[in-house]
Amino acid sequence: MRVLAIGAHPDDVEALCGGTLAKCAARGDRITIMIATNGNVGSSTLSREEIAAVRKKEAEDAAALIGADLIWMGFDDEFLFHDRQTRLAFINAIRKADPDFMFVTSPNDYHPDHRICGEIAIDCRIPVTVPLIETEYPPMSKIPHVFLMDTVGSVGFEPDAYVDITDTYELRGRMLQCHESQGAWLQYVYGMDYAEFLARPTAMRGMAIGVKYAEAFRSLPMYPISGGSYMLP
Amino acid sequence: MRVLAIGAHPDDVEALCGGTLAKCAARGDRITIMIATNGNVGSSTLSREEIAAVRKKEAEDAAALIGADLIWMGFDDEFLFHDRQTRLAFINAIRKADPDFMFVTSPNDYHPDHRICGEIAIDCRIPVTVPLIETEYPPMSKIPHVFLMDTVGSVGFEPDAYVDITDTYELRGRMLQCHESQGAWLQYVYGMDYAEFLARPTAMRGMAIGVKYAEAFRSLPMYPISGGSYMLP
Amino acid sequence: MRVLAIGAHPDDVEALCGGTLAKCAARGDRITIMIATNGNVGSSTLSREEIAAVRKKEAEDAAALIGADLIWMGFDDEFLFHDRQTRLAFINAIRKADPDFMFVTSPNDYHPDHRICGEIAIDCRIPVTVPLIETEYPPMSKIPHVFLMDTVGSVGFEPDAYVDITDTYELRGRMLQCHESQGAWLQYVYGMDYAEFLARPTAMRGMAIGVKYAEAFRSLPMYPISGGSYMLP
Amino acid sequence: MRVLAIGAHPDDVEALCGGTLAKCAARGDRITIMIATNGNVGSSTLSREEIAAVRKKEAEDAAALIGADLIWMGFDDEFLFHDRQTRLAFINAIRKADPDFMFVTSPNDYHPDHRICGEIAIDCRIPVTVPLIETEYPPMSKIPHVFLMDTVGSVGFEPDAYVDITDTYELRGRMLQCHESQGAWLQYVYGMDYAEFLARPTAMRGMAIGVKYAEAFRSLPMYPISGGSYMLP
Amino acid sequence: MRVLAIGAHPDDVEALCGGTLAKCAARGDRITIMIATNGNVGSSTLSREEIAAVRKKEAEDAAALIGADLIWMGFDDEFLFHDRQTRLAFINAIRKADPDFMFVTSPNDYHPDHRICGEIAIDCRIPVTVPLIETEYPPMSKIPHVFLMDTVGSVGFEPDAYVDITDTYELRGRMLQCHESQGAWLQYVYGMDYAEFLARPTAMRGMAIGVKYAEAFRSLPMYPISGGSYMLP
Amino acid sequence: MRVLAIGAHPDDVEALCGGTLAKCAARGDRITIMIATNGNVGSSTLSREEIAAVRKKEAEDAAALIGADLIWMGFDDEFLFHDRQTRLAFINAIRKADPDFMFVTSPNDYHPDHRICGEIAIDCRIPVTVPLIETEYPPMSKIPHVFLMDTVGSVGFEPDAYVDITDTYELRGRMLQCHESQGAWLQYVYGMDYAEFLARPTAMRGMAIGVKYAEAFRSLPMYPISGGSYMLP
Repeated sequence: MRVLAIGAHPDDVEALCGGTLAKCAARGDRITIMIATNGNVGSSTLSREEIAAVRKKEAEDAAALIGADLIWMGFDDEFLFHDRQTRLAFINAIRKADPDFMFVTSPNDYHPDHRICGEIAIDCRIPVTVPLIETEYPPMSKIPHVFLMDTVGSVGFEPDAYVDITDTYELRGRMLQCHESQGAWLQYVYGMDYAEFLARPTAMRGMAIGVKYAEAFRSLPMYPISGGSYMLP
Repeated sequence: MRVLAIGAHPDDVEALCGGTLAKCAARGDRITIMIATNGNVGSSTLSREEIAAVRKKEAEDAAALIGADLIWMGFDDEFLFHDRQTRLAFINAIRKADPDFMFVTSPNDYHPDHRICGEIAIDCRIPVTVPLIETEYPPMSKIPHVFLMDTVGSVGFEPDAYVDITDTYELRGRMLQCHESQGAWLQYVYGMDYAEFLARPTAMRGMAIGVKYAEAFRSLPMYPISGGSYMLP
Repeated sequence: MRVLAIGAHPDDVEALCGGTLAKCAARGDRITIMIATNGNVGSSTLSREEIAAVRKKEAEDAAALIGADLIWMGFDDEFLFHDRQTRLAFINAIRKADPDFMFVTSPNDYHPDHRICGEIAIDCRIPVTVPLIETEYPPMSKIPHVFLMDTVGSVGFEPDAYVDITDTYELRGRMLQCHESQGAWLQYVYGMDYAEFLARPTAMRGMAIGVKYAEAFRSLPMYPISGGSYMLP
Repeated sequence: MRVLAIGAHPDDVEALCGGTLAKCAARGDRITIMIATNGNVGSSTLSREEIAAVRKKEAEDAAALIGADLIWMGFDDEFLFHDRQTRLAFINAIRKADPDFMFVTSPNDYHPDHRICGEIAIDCRIPVTVPLIETEYPPMSKIPHVFLMDTVGSVGFEPDAYVDITDTYELRGRMLQCHESQGAWLQYVYGMDYAEFLARPTAMRGMAIGVKYAEAFRSLPMYPISGGSYMLP
Repeated sequence: MRVLAIGAHPDDVEALCGGTLAKCAARGDRITIMIATNGNVGSSTLSREEIAAVRKKEAEDAAALIGADLIWMGFDDEFLFHDRQTRLAFINAIRKADPDFMFVTSPNDYHPDHRICGEIAIDCRIPVTVPLIETEYPPMSKIPHVFLMDTVGSVGFEPDAYVDITDTYELRGRMLQCHESQGAWLQYVYGMDYAEFLARPTAMRGMAIGVKYAEAFRSLPMYPISGGSYMLP
Repeated sequence: MRVLAIGAHPDDVEALCGGTLAKCAARGDRITIMIATNGNVGSSTLSREEIAAVRKKEAEDAAALIGADLIWMGFDDEFLFHDRQTRLAFINAIRKADPDFMFVTSPNDYHPDHRICGEIAIDCRIPVTVPLIETEYPPMSKIPHVFLMDTVGSVGFEPDAYVDITDTYELRGRMLQCHESQGAWLQYVYGMDYAEFLARPTAMRGMAIGVKYAEAFRSLPMYPISGGSYMLP
């Protein structure tokens, strides 16, 4: 299968579905990670250009760990908006990845970029198949299924699918550690270190299904239903 | 009564409230069908301009079958956005129709244009009455009531009103058949023919109220409540 | 796998998950159908004892069509209540079937017996595993996963899993036809014939996933999550 | 039309749909008020028998003001439970009234008797039509439609229908004043006088629809949908 | 504490949390009222510029009554949209007020400006703390907690916190009366006078907690939870 | 303040609000722990009488650690039902504790005893104040406020209040360790040790508010609202 994970910022995908992507990779899926913004505010010490460059490199390193392709959209961090140009850029990027299913940030997640990124991705679900919407890549032949990723803090999110990531937890940890610029930043803004940020939600979701670590998802309930949780590893 | 049905694309209104509009017409209501986009991507063979022209003609023919006025907004298919110019165009069009109540696409329907079209229409409910918002047509004297139309596939929609359309089912079928360019398109994108698309949801909603065919709606719960399902035919 | 479908009345299981059970049978699952009440009010012409006897025979015939075991609980139709004796009877019956997962009627379905039957079944999920609750059959070794079946009329039910039953639709039809005493009864109470009752909801749910006929379910979101829709055929 | 309003206690019906019943009476409906419990704890000074007798008289007086029949069930106040005998008593009483639609207390209202009374009434919706459930009164020929009444304090209740009761507000006030034993009781338990208890929720619901006073309801979303808010006066 | 109340129009804050702000002022909080639009359509007789000037003066007078600072954003009434420039203006204004918690209009309130204003404010919750987003005022040192204000008409809003405003009800009345230009306007659009508009919802919410008048709120459930209703006066 | 925590089984209260109770104790509240069932199935080796005796002793030891009173109801584990006798026993026990607020198990928690215990407790909220319901202890003078405790596994529970229990986490651990008979049982049924069971949910809820450990609650939204989260420590 072809899998596309769409994050608003570098490290979102690793944090919210990294263990699952690693399992997908292990079963032979072709994986693409697409990142909407360039993360250019994620520092309390570097300039916007500097931190953006650092984060792109970090994202590439993380993706490489599971052999994933990376699509770097480069929109300004904290300023993703839903306009024609952004939607077209998303349509083109999704077509490039041509996924059977997509992981997207939840439209009620905690950060505006997460919410808007998720909405744009969902809004592209149908248009990616429409021939008269012309972009660099050709129209897809079928509507990809969509999974919403858990929210940060698991606030306001009721999963209907869980993936046991005990086996890939360590690899996911290494993916997250590629984003070392964000260790200090998380500590600065949320007072939490990466290890905790990594462990707590997956331990909780793991408890729900009786394993050590799990990631949680929700199938988008929207016509036409073009997949389901049986697609998950 | 004056009734306004707002669809995102040509044929939305016929598919989601066509039988009800035909009943409204039969009891003497003045009916307007307003279509936000020009449907200019709905083809796998024609150019954008060609398919838009075809669809406008189809929409006019369908409207004529129940004596409805047609307001053709002409926005680009798949690219309806919620900005000042679009809202003003909607305000003006709604004022032209001056409805007692409106049918709008549901803000959680399956297609981005449906969701955004419904949101814009709902956002115009109050402003259409405000004199200092000047458009071609004069301000309305009262806030129109809003009914959300069923979603495509009836996913994520809990009706609170049903209309028995058994008597107008055949006429609604003829309205939909006016959109003959979309028969091939539906088959192309969703693998479903028009007859099925027509029959399945209305048979299901009909079962709920014990009749052969029905359409389902939901009153918008928003202050001030300016009408209710007693307005329906 | 071992599958248990629990209906409140004879014919509930056939109507709400019959096509799925037939698919389970086809892949080699061991299937048990458990029926809470004896259907002893389902007639406008026979006595309670007569109609109960007729319906038991019908249920046996329907179960035989897919090689399913039948557990006949024999509670009075329309008078299922949630008390100690009923819960113990359910615990014992579920242990007898020893399922990996169960289909149960939804706690917000249209009929009081459906609602209460679903609640009792859900309430037995944990106790079936507890050794100190002694019944005829031994405690189960793991908590069975629970799927709620669609509601009658699909009112107030948002599925998170669909099963394409196009291939077993005809067989499901024959299962339902075994309940021939109910043809007249459905017509008497709901003004609907069996063929319609069979076709409408599955055609609608089929449309949602782009097939001819489907049945729809919802995983019970309750700790511990002991399965998921990947178990479905 | 025939209308049945089912309250858990004497004065519930007057407080939650009294103005609407008065409008029903004014248009010629046949109205029955059915009261589940005898109100025998509603006093801080009288004995259980004394207060029950007082309240029955009060209920009769209130019903007489709009020409309604009264069905006094006589269950113990605060101890309504959902068992076979209670359900049969409800089935019989509903059959006696033979309503086109019923007003019932909401299953999430504030008082246990309200919640359970509403649930029992809803659970009787289908069985009242079943011939083999034999009670004093004959089976009904059709399933009555159900409206949930607003909750006390309007907490956790989202209406989908409103009735303007400005014209019958004064008459409703006189109905409530018949329950004069409860004036002191309300003050004792909730620190609120009857006039306020009467005015506040209806003024608020009235504001929602732009009138002086209104009562609010919700159609029960349950198969088969056998009516709708068009039935309301 | 520092408190920021964000209204879409002049008088929103007074109507939806005025009594609570007055209590905050009484306990010594530093209060800022921020108004997104200039109210320049709120008249059926004056020009846009005239009514905007009138309303600014009214807002200043109302704020002065409780010693609150006023931030006048000046966007066009009825045309608030969610774009980069508007978000930046909100970020800057919130930073100026530097609040511990904010009151914002609910994203499902009745008026498009209310919905969008609430969304923008919520979207600024995180960015206000980010140093690389540079505006006139410096980044905040912690994420402010957010309370959603009750909707107009209390439609579709389930509070989880109430504030008894009986003591400040009269003062809130005087704040609202500063907006005397809107008395005629409310009568014109909604057929309701200010006194009623003031009294009805607060009397209803007061009934819920057993006091004369109350205002109702809901904590925003979003990571990181940076406060709670214990902050309220 | 007087605080009552009602668990279905010995150890529920410690697991779901133990840290909060310890904080209540530290600020001087009078605390009562009430346990509905005797836990007499919670063993795979002892007899029902033996394990019940063990668990009573464990519960007493745990309560003693925070100086709480213990009310041992003694109903059969897994067979709590909602009948008159059980409700009266609850009313009497609540009156004995005479709480300002109660913690109760959530009506959608994972275990039938939890669900039913929570429902019974909620159903007693009003009747505990009614003089004509005579039990051993006198009627309470005011309606206690109710907090729902988090569900096990945090499935289907959206908190509106959090308590930082970092300081009492160790003490809560010792309370849970008093229930040493359940260590083996948890391992037997859910494959999880007590330490994990203790740590995972509180670490997750702690993350939501930016602390090490937290417990989460939800105020019951039901008239009359007689308290709020400001009561929590």
